[in-house]
Amino acid sequence: MPGENFRVYLAERPKAEIMAGTTLKTETVPLPKAEDLQDGQLLVENLYLSLDPAMRGWMNDTRSYVPPVAIGEPMRAATVSRVLASKSPKAKPGDILPTLAGWTEYAIIPDATIQPIDTYPPVTHPSDYLSVIGMTGLTAYFGMLRIGEPRAGDTVVVSGAAGATGSVAGQIAKLRGARVVGIAGSDDKCAWLTRELGFDAAINYKDPDFPRKFREATPDRIDVFFDNVGGEVLDLALGRAKEFARFVICGGISQYNSSNVQGPKNFLSVISMRIKMQGFIVLDYAKEFTAARKELAQWLDEGKIKRKETILKGGLQVAEQGLIDLYKGINTGKLMVEIKSPTAPSKL
Amino acid sequence: MPGENFRVYLAERPKAEIMAGTTLKTETVPLPKAEDLQDGQLLVENLYLSLDPAMRGWMNDTRSYVPPVAIGEPMRAATVSRVLASKSPKAKPGDILPTLAGWTEYAIIPDATIQPIDTYPPVTHPSDYLSVIGMTGLTAYFGMLRIGEPRAGDTVVVSGAAGATGSVAGQIAKLRGARVVGIAGSDDKCAWLTRELGFDAAINYKDPDFPRKFREATPDRIDVFFDNVGGEVLDLALGRAKEFARFVICGGISQYNSSNVQGPKNFLSVISMRIKMQGFIVLDYAKEFTAARKELAQWLDEGKIKRKETILKGGLQVAEQGLIDLYKGINTGKLMVEIKSPTAPSKL
Ligand SMILES: NC(=O)c1ccc[n+]([C@@H]2O[C@H](COP(=O)([O-])OP(=O)(O)OC[C@H]3O[C@@H](n4cnc5c(N)ncnc54)[C@H](OP(=O)(O)O)[C@@H]3O)[C@@H](O)[C@H]2O)c1
Ligand SMILES: NC(=O)c1ccc[n+]([C@@H]2O[C@H](COP(=O)([O-])OP(=O)(O)OC[C@H]3O[C@@H](n4cnc5c(N)ncnc54)[C@H](OP(=O)(O)O)[C@@H]3O)[C@@H](O)[C@H]2O)c1
Repeated sequence: MPGENFRVYLAERPKAEIMAGTTLKTETVPLPKAEDLQDGQLLVENLYLSLDPAMRGWMNDTRSYVPPVAIGEPMRAATVSRVLASKSPKAKPGDILPTLAGWTEYAIIPDATIQPIDTYPPVTHPSDYLSVIGMTGLTAYFGMLRIGEPRAGDTVVVSGAAGATGSVAGQIAKLRGARVVGIAGSDDKCAWLTRELGFDAAINYKDPDFPRKFREATPDRIDVFFDNVGGEVLDLALGRAKEFARFVICGGISQYNSSNVQGPKNFLSVISMRIKMQGFIVLDYAKEFTAARKELAQWLDEGKIKRKETILKGGLQVAEQGLIDLYKGINTGKLMVEIKSPTAPSKL
Repeated sequence: MPGENFRVYLAERPKAEIMAGTTLKTETVPLPKAEDLQDGQLLVENLYLSLDPAMRGWMNDTRSYVPPVAIGEPMRAATVSRVLASKSPKAKPGDILPTLAGWTEYAIIPDATIQPIDTYPPVTHPSDYLSVIGMTGLTAYFGMLRIGEPRAGDTVVVSGAAGATGSVAGQIAKLRGARVVGIAGSDDKCAWLTRELGFDAAINYKDPDFPRKFREATPDRIDVFFDNVGGEVLDLALGRAKEFARFVICGGISQYNSSNVQGPKNFLSVISMRIKMQGFIVLDYAKEFTAARKELAQWLDEGKIKRKETILKGGLQVAEQGLIDLYKGINTGKLMVEIKSPTAPSKL
C-alpha cells in the first residue's frame, strides 16, 4: 500500500524446514518518518535483499556467532539501500550502500551498522554490494586466501560451487593458479562452471555415479577443500584428501534443515592424513573488508571474476518462498530479491 | 622354548574388534644368528613391547600414514631392545634403546629404524623409552605444544586423560600454566589425575551425569581440546568450545573397533565457534625428536612430569589379550608388555 511499510517478521522457530506462511509472517506498519531521525541514524529504502543459507540458523535459539532473531522481530538480512535522510556523517541522501536493514521496505537504521560511504568501491550494479563485493564475495575471499591458502598447481575442490560464495571462491583459487574442481547440483550449473568460469572440472553431486566421477576428477587428490555443504560431500572429500590438506569449513547447508544432523563419518582421516579443518565467520575479518572489497571490485572490473546473480522480482512478498527455494538450489550465483527497482518511485 | 624364537603374526584382518586367537597367531621359529648379520643390521632381544591403540588401524587394509601390516607378517610394534650384536655404527652390544622390532623375542633389524644411541637421553628405567620419552610422550609434546598451543589461564580439556598420551599431554598443559580438565573411564583414574598429577578437575565419562559435570568443570568453556577418543566426548567438547578454540585431533579410540563409525554430530560448531581442528601424526616431527626427548627426560628428572606405566608380565603370550584390554581401559599410563626382564638371562 502506498502509505504503508511492508515487512516480514519471524513468527515461529522452525524445527526442521522453514514452513511457508508459518515461520515468517508479513505485516504492514506506518512508514518511518524523516522527522523522527535521531543523531547517528539514517532513513533508508531497501533496493535488494540478500537471501542467505545462514538465515535458517539465525532462527534457532542456540549459541552462535550472532544472537538469534527474536520472535516478532523483523527478519534479519543484508540489504542494499538508498539513503533518504541522514543524521550521520557516514552517508548522505541519495547514497546507495550495503546495509543490514532486514526484511522491510523502509527502515531507520543506526549508523553503527554501516561503514562510511567512501569505504565502498563505486559500482555500476548496486546488487554487486550483495554478491561479489558483498558478504558472500568476502567470505570466499577470506576463506580461500586466509584458510585455504591455495598454491599454484594445488587441487582445490569447492562444494556448493555454483552458489554465491562457491563461485567466487573457485574463481579466486583459479587466480592463484590452482586446478579447481567444482561440485554443484545440476548439469547446467556444472556446464556454467567449466564453460563460463573456467573451472577445470565440475561434477553434479546428484549424479548416481558421483563418487566415481569425483575420484576421477581428483587424480592427485585434494590439497584444499572449500566446503559449503557438509554431509556426504564432505565425507567423500575427506576420503580424497592429500596429506596435510586444508579444509575450509565455510558452511554445511546439507545439514541446516535437518533435525538429525550427520557428522562426517570419515572423520578419522583428519588424523591419518593430518588434515587441518578450520571454521570461520566472515565478520572476523571486518577490519580488512575495505581493502578486500577494493581488490574484489578491481577483479570484477578487469573481468577476472565474473558476476552472476539470481534476482527474484516481486518484492518482499516473494522473499520467503525464495529462501525456501535457496535450499533447493534455485539459484546460480547470488540469490537476492529486488525489493524496489533503483529507478522506481519511492513511497517516501 | 630355550632354542627358539617366539613371535606373533597377523593372521586375519578383523572386521570390528580384535578376536583373541584368530586375528593374531603365535609361532616359534629358529633364533636369529649373529653370524647372519649384514652391514647396517643389529641383532636385538626385546625387553618391552608397546601396546598401542593404533595397532587396530595397522590391521586394516586402507590408506593411512603407514602401510598395513601384511597377513603372515610379525605384528608391528615399538619395542625397547638390548643390542646383542651389531654391524651398525649407531649402537653397540649392550646398548638398550627404542626400536621397532615388533611382536617377537629376538630380531635382526635394519639400523634405518633406529637413531644413533647418543641421541637418546640416558634413563634409569628402560621402559621410559616407550612412555614419557617414547612415542606417546612425544605425541603429547608435539600435539599439545605445536597444535594446542595452550596459554597461561586457558582451559585445556584432555580426553583419554589417564592414558599414556593423555596423562603427559595434561601435565605439559599444566606446565604452561593452563587450567586442565581430564576425562577418563573410572573414578580411580580421575582421582589419580587430580591427586597425583595435579589436574584441576577430572570427570568419569561413564558417569550418567557426565554431560552436566562436564559443563560444570568448564565454566569458562574450552580453549584447547586434546582429543584421544572421538565420538560422544568430542561432541560434548564441540558444544563447550570457546570461539577460536583449537581442537588437537590426536586419536579417536572410541571409533577404532567400530564397523559403523559416528562422525561428530556437533560439527557445525566448527563454523559458528571458528574452531580449528587439526590432525597430526607424531612421526611428522621426527626431525625434532632428539630435542623433545631431552626436554621430556629433564621434566621427568625434575619431577615436573610423573611417569606411570601398566606393565604386563608373562611375555609375548599375554600381549594379544593386553591389546584387547587396552580398548577396555585396563591401563593407567602407558600399557606395555615385559617380554624379558632386563636382568633375566638371554636365550642367545
Ligand atoms: N562462514 C561464513 O562466514 C559464511 C558466510 C556466508 C555463507 N556461508 C555459507 O556458505 C554456504 C553458501 O552460502 P551462499 O550464501 O553462497 O549460498 P549459495 O551457495 O548461493 O546457495 C546455496 C546453495 O547450496 C546448494 N545446496 C542446497 N542444499 C544442498 C544440499 N543438501 N547439499 C548440497 N548442496 C546444497 C544449492 O545449490 P545446488 O544446486 O548445488 O545444490 C544452493 O544453490 C552456506 O553453507 C552458507 O551458510 C558461510
Ligand atoms: N596422532 C598420533 O601420532 C598418535 C600417536 C600415539 C597415540 N595416538 C592416539 O592417542 C590415543 C591414546 O593412545 P595411547 O597410546 O596413549 O593409549 P592410552 O590412552 O594409554 O590407552 C587407551 C585408553 O583409551 C581409553 N578408551 C578406550 N576405549 C574408549 C572409548 N570407547 N571411549 C573413551 N575412551 C576409551 C581407555 O581409557 P578409559 O578407561 O579412560 O576409557 C584406554 O586406557 C589413541 O587414540 C591413539 O590412537 C595418536
